[in-house]
Amino acid sequence: MQNYKMLIQYEGTKYNGWQRQGNTKNTIQGKIEDILLKLCGKPVEVHGSGRTDAGVHAMGQVVSFKADISLSTREITAYFNSYLPSDIAVIATEVAEERFHARLNAISKTYVYRIWRNEIPDVFGRRTRYTFTEPLDVDKMREAAGKLCGTHDFMAFCSNKKSKKSTVRTLYSIDIRQTKNELKLTFRGDGFLYNMVRIMTGTLLEIGEGKKKAGDIEKIFKSLSRENAGATAPAEGLTLAEVEY
Amino acid sequence: MQNYKMLIQYEGTKYNGWQRQGNTKNTIQGKIEDILLKLCGKPVEVHGSGRTDAGVHAMGQVVSFKADISLSTREITAYFNSYLPSDIAVIATEVAEERFHARLNAISKTYVYRIWRNEIPDVFGRRTRYTFTEPLDVDKMREAAGKLCGTHDFMAFCSNKKSKKSTVRTLYSIDIRQTKNELKLTFRGDGFLYNMVRIMTGTLLEIGEGKKKAGDIEKIFKSLSRENAGATAPAEGLTLAEVEY
Repeated sequence: MQNYKMLIQYEGTKYNGWQRQGNTKNTIQGKIEDILLKLCGKPVEVHGSGRTDAGVHAMGQVVSFKADISLSTREITAYFNSYLPSDIAVIATEVAEERFHARLNAISKTYVYRIWRNEIPDVFGRRTRYTFTEPLDVDKMREAAGKLCGTHDFMAFCSNKKSKKSTVRTLYSIDIRQTKNELKLTFRGDGFLYNMVRIMTGTLLEIGEGKKKAGDIEKIFKSLSRENAGATAPAEGLTLAEVEY
Repeated sequence: MQNYKMLIQYEGTKYNGWQRQGNTKNTIQGKIEDILLKLCGKPVEVHGSGRTDAGVHAMGQVVSFKADISLSTREITAYFNSYLPSDIAVIATEVAEERFHARLNAISKTYVYRIWRNEIPDVFGRRTRYTFTEPLDVDKMREAAGKLCGTHDFMAFCSNKKSKKSTVRTLYSIDIRQTKNELKLTFRGDGFLYNMVRIMTGTLLEIGEGKKKAGDIEKIFKSLSRENAGATAPAEGLTLAEVEY
């Protein structure tokens, strides 16, 4: 058995997220595993670096799996791409160390949230950007972003109430760039909770609009309560850009 | 009656081209005219700067129409965008001189043909790029492009055999740019015949592959015969970038 590491891209628009779950059809993991089943003749479980929600995209999702395949890594990439739908692609396949695991070994992840800032619709970028045209005080958003960074209990920025696992994470940076028609938020951290990037984005937008204050961030952290953070920003604007090991 | 000039964008993937024709449903012109009918309460004919084929995109298509509308140009833009599907957008509306006509007054047009040059599928750009991964001698393509430029009878580069109109056009420039994964051909001319950009692109690709020679261009022109030019490159790679008046 060989351990493989694979870099994949997808436009998440049509999918029910990364994770295959019970009867949930049409997941990215499901599409990858369907092809592995065809290639190996038996079910092979694929581990992603993390789950992406329904509608979220990936430029650089990383997956790992163990399998017995008599093809070169280049041939494996080509095999997958010949069977995958056009909105999912394998960028590269490599043989990994025996103990490599896409989720457990990830040391940081980078997510990008793209916001279209023009009332004129975004024909060519509409699937990967969220349109939000209200006036925003971007300096206030940057001030709040600074307060979000660091090691905190991000419980208030997580949609999953059931989990008993630690909700402490370290957010290394939030870079906010403004161009004529786009506001781009880049989040880099050691890991992200369920919906965490989208809730941070929604909170930063409310701060930019003046509905919340940058100084509220500390109170939201302390409250540990999802209700105190902002709304969950729509999935379409979010892309998993990179995973580092 | 006011004369209007409108700048529009569309992702042509789902449409049967620009022109409404008899029973052809699902054309860009049809979508625009449907909204004008709703707005004006009677049919209004819209003139495009030119027809784009089924599957061809536009960043800067220009249209004109005469109508009686009691809204500001800004409001007209917003009205259209509230009813148009998400793959068509009105970028701007302005009041034009009485005699302005989007097709008759156009003095030049710029088309861009995008080619994806990597075997790894192009997930995020796939709808507006044609994937072609064979080796290409780009210098040979540039040499041939130089021979295509100028004033010529482009009959051999036109799919429409029936037309009795002049097939003489002036091609001002063909700019060929190569980046890591993309080859971008930009054509600027005073007008283009049916399928002309796609046939020139197909011919340049055959020259890049060595199937034809740059020196063949003159013979193809002289033959006035469509069979001597290269294949028609697929619609998906082509975008009408700009129309000048």
